[in-house]
Amino acid sequence: MTSSGLGSSTYEKLIDHVREEHLLRTTASLLSWDQEVMMPRAGVEHRSRQCALLARLAHQMTIDSRVGEWLSACEEDDQLMSDPLAVASVNVRELRRHHDRAVKLPQELVEQIAATSSTARAHWEVARRENDFDQFKPWLSKIVELTRRKAECLGWPEGGEPWDALADAYEPGLSAASVSAVFDPLRERLVRLNEKLLGSTQPPANCFSGVTLREAPMRRFVRDVAGRLGFDFSRGRLDTSTHPFCATLAEHDVRMTTRYGESNPIEPLFSTMHETGHGIYNQGLPAQHAGTPMGSSVSLSIHESQSRLWENQVGRSRAFWTWSFPKLRRYFGATVKSLSPEAVYASANRVQPQCIRVEADEATYNLHIVVRFELERSLMNDSLAVGDLPEAWAGQYKDALGIDVPDDAQGCLQDIHWSGGAIGYFPTYTLGNLYAAQFFEAASQQISDLPEQIAKGHFDSLRTWLGRGIHQQGMRYRSAELCEQVTGKPLSAEPLMRHLEGKLKPVYGL
Amino acid sequence: MTSSGLGSSTYEKLIDHVREEHLLRTTASLLSWDQEVMMPRAGVEHRSRQCALLARLAHQMTIDSRVGEWLSACEEDDQLMSDPLAVASVNVRELRRHHDRAVKLPQELVEQIAATSSTARAHWEVARRENDFDQFKPWLSKIVELTRRKAECLGWPEGGEPWDALADAYEPGLSAASVSAVFDPLRERLVRLNEKLLGSTQPPANCFSGVTLREAPMRRFVRDVAGRLGFDFSRGRLDTSTHPFCATLAEHDVRMTTRYGESNPIEPLFSTMHETGHGIYNQGLPAQHAGTPMGSSVSLSIHESQSRLWENQVGRSRAFWTWSFPKLRRYFGATVKSLSPEAVYASANRVQPQCIRVEADEATYNLHIVVRFELERSLMNDSLAVGDLPEAWAGQYKDALGIDVPDDAQGCLQDIHWSGGAIGYFPTYTLGNLYAAQFFEAASQQISDLPEQIAKGHFDSLRTWLGRGIHQQGMRYRSAELCEQVTGKPLSAEPLMRHLEGKLKPVYGL
Repeated sequence: MTSSGLGSSTYEKLIDHVREEHLLRTTASLLSWDQEVMMPRAGVEHRSRQCALLARLAHQMTIDSRVGEWLSACEEDDQLMSDPLAVASVNVRELRRHHDRAVKLPQELVEQIAATSSTARAHWEVARRENDFDQFKPWLSKIVELTRRKAECLGWPEGGEPWDALADAYEPGLSAASVSAVFDPLRERLVRLNEKLLGSTQPPANCFSGVTLREAPMRRFVRDVAGRLGFDFSRGRLDTSTHPFCATLAEHDVRMTTRYGESNPIEPLFSTMHETGHGIYNQGLPAQHAGTPMGSSVSLSIHESQSRLWENQVGRSRAFWTWSFPKLRRYFGATVKSLSPEAVYASANRVQPQCIRVEADEATYNLHIVVRFELERSLMNDSLAVGDLPEAWAGQYKDALGIDVPDDAQGCLQDIHWSGGAIGYFPTYTLGNLYAAQFFEAASQQISDLPEQIAKGHFDSLRTWLGRGIHQQGMRYRSAELCEQVTGKPLSAEPLMRHLEGKLKPVYGL
Repeated sequence: MTSSGLGSSTYEKLIDHVREEHLLRTTASLLSWDQEVMMPRAGVEHRSRQCALLARLAHQMTIDSRVGEWLSACEEDDQLMSDPLAVASVNVRELRRHHDRAVKLPQELVEQIAATSSTARAHWEVARRENDFDQFKPWLSKIVELTRRKAECLGWPEGGEPWDALADAYEPGLSAASVSAVFDPLRERLVRLNEKLLGSTQPPANCFSGVTLREAPMRRFVRDVAGRLGFDFSRGRLDTSTHPFCATLAEHDVRMTTRYGESNPIEPLFSTMHETGHGIYNQGLPAQHAGTPMGSSVSLSIHESQSRLWENQVGRSRAFWTWSFPKLRRYFGATVKSLSPEAVYASANRVQPQCIRVEADEATYNLHIVVRFELERSLMNDSLAVGDLPEAWAGQYKDALGIDVPDDAQGCLQDIHWSGGAIGYFPTYTLGNLYAAQFFEAASQQISDLPEQIAKGHFDSLRTWLGRGIHQQGMRYRSAELCEQVTGKPLSAEPLMRHLEGKLKPVYGL
């Protein structure tokens, strides 16, 4: 770490301060984890008040005027900032961004958004249940209006647009233009691939149809696999919740959840592999920098790239099922005796366009996201009115996925995100898929026998490769820079399309 | 609630403030609960820092100078304070006590005690493991010295002694003199009872000797019993931890733990019934006053009275086993087919003087406590030097329990309490037993068919009686006053001795 007289001691004050803020934020994470996993429902009112208090205390620490002063002093310290990729420079850069974003938002607007989101979410729930967009419309309009005010307070770089200011919260420096540059060709090629697969006369069958995999052995199976992939259970947990997630409660306390009893009996495995990807990233961040940007993940899309890579590039590969099928046999015995590794592999790669994003397959999933990105961008640019959303949604689904949306409950009311003001969030899912494919392609080039290793259940080389290039770097690089660092190329749609086409065409006998 | 113009609005500010402090303190409770029940061990360092931060933030709220001003304004408001047993008066009275105790302690002393306790605890662990009092002696001397300084800062009422100032933290208003007045006759009568039982030629056998009760059915059995006693699982949980405890995370979120795999196979049941007593008390406190003294428990001894009552007065009664034995049969089948309700009842009431407090039976347990009280009182009064503790301990055990203490590990090094500075705490255990007996005797007089109800597994009348007289009162009365309110008499050793003699003599064929 570069350091100098005054700069160093000011820098240390800054770091002590953000580490204390981190103690509050991880305490808030425990409150949330516990609420999802442990808490009796009757505790929810008290818990909400605790969460609000902790959020307020942490926010006060973020906007503390001393933080601005310390940051300015550090920024003027040429010695401290001499190497822009050194620990101190990275921390100052990201803390500046974090502080400025918080300071730019008037308290009154933050509170108005929080209150409106909370009410809007309740109205969204009813509207979805009753399939009645009109009930949600005025609330979505309010959200769009407040979110646009938020974007204006935050500002965006020259040549950008309001959407950029919002996306920056999830993906530092992301712009709608840069997303379009990748999403446009991706959309076109995914539509073509989808059409080809639909024309296949030999689509793969679902080998799990009519099969029930009991919960008790499934729990042991997924835990076994998560451990083999590299999740360190001495520094984490795996529990159950309605919506699977992964939370970092401390550098050595990473908690994932999964769920059982899904309509697709093998889903708990993929869900667990997904969360394990998040978990391995969190456990692989440099512990000595915990609580500072250098000990934090880059962005939502890079985080998602890790979960998708283990779920899709690894979990839905032929090599993986060579290793894991005998394990499946061991855990489930006679229940799976009619199956084969080949049948499971093909089942895990079925493509079926349908309306609901969270039930989508690996390929068409990205079309759901592209549609949402285009619509939310238009809402922010005022080129789409909230009242016209259902029609625009249906049109996009017809165009991109070739399907008719039967109603708004299965259309523009299906996701919770917008009701909570999370505009600019959706693209991180597909960016994650794109990064996953590009990272895995680079890893495969550098680890020549990777499929053979996976087929033997050896995941160490891959995990070490990801660890060195991505996990241990903390926030040193922004997403786009990291991609160039690790793969030598800017992000593109090519690796994901190569991955999907290379895998799906043979599965579909094309 | 009595209220008046200025007083009321000041009073409301005070209550809002303490409710916010309560949000922090219950968040700290979650941090601790999670540490004992869920957290991977690797998370301990981060967790300690979180706990220290939350404790500091809560302490700052307690000593906030505005609290003193609001309290003074309330105290001067004759209308607000007109009825000393009304909600506002009780809250002001107890908040004053809480605030004054915190303000009287210099920050420097608080930190010194925290740091010394932490080191002393580590040295105590080694000393106990290595059976070497000399390693602990200098640390215990420091603890005694700092604790005496603490007592001097806090002060004690005219005619009292330093010990009183310390006990007040656990038991508002308790004095060593009042403890002696009950403990002295108790000691004498317990020693005599013990001698009589030891002379019995028909001591009861341990019917569980050689029996193994598997953990899975035991989990279901104890959960079933806890629910039947009245623990509301929709507002709480039962989990596993090394040391069983009960924590209130919110008015509608009460969490108990128990443990399995004990040397005594039926112990998980008694441990669970004990914690269920705490849990029912916590769930029975008036929810509308949560976060204020009126929504809090009276003291440690009253809390302990509730756990001991369900464990001992109920759980070790003949009536209870009439109801629960068929249940035991249902859960454990052939494993317990050679047992009978009578044999289990007798086994649950075996008396065996030995050195270790936490393994003691219902009767001799109190002698362990009396010994500790007398020794810690002498340490505080300077009439016992720390260096003379091992000898004094051995002498007391010979005298009170009639046994030789083989070494200090099984003697004065066995408990964790003093190493953490908890002096004045031990008596609350036996006060709890005394209150339990006196409450249960009163309940039995007022609910004429109580044994018949218990024998049928009907616990509602008892729970309602405890709820009305004790749980719903919050901190309205101090322990001694509550006892008079509920039983019509001051606390005495008589009910506990009647309970023990009435039960144990027949069991021992006397």
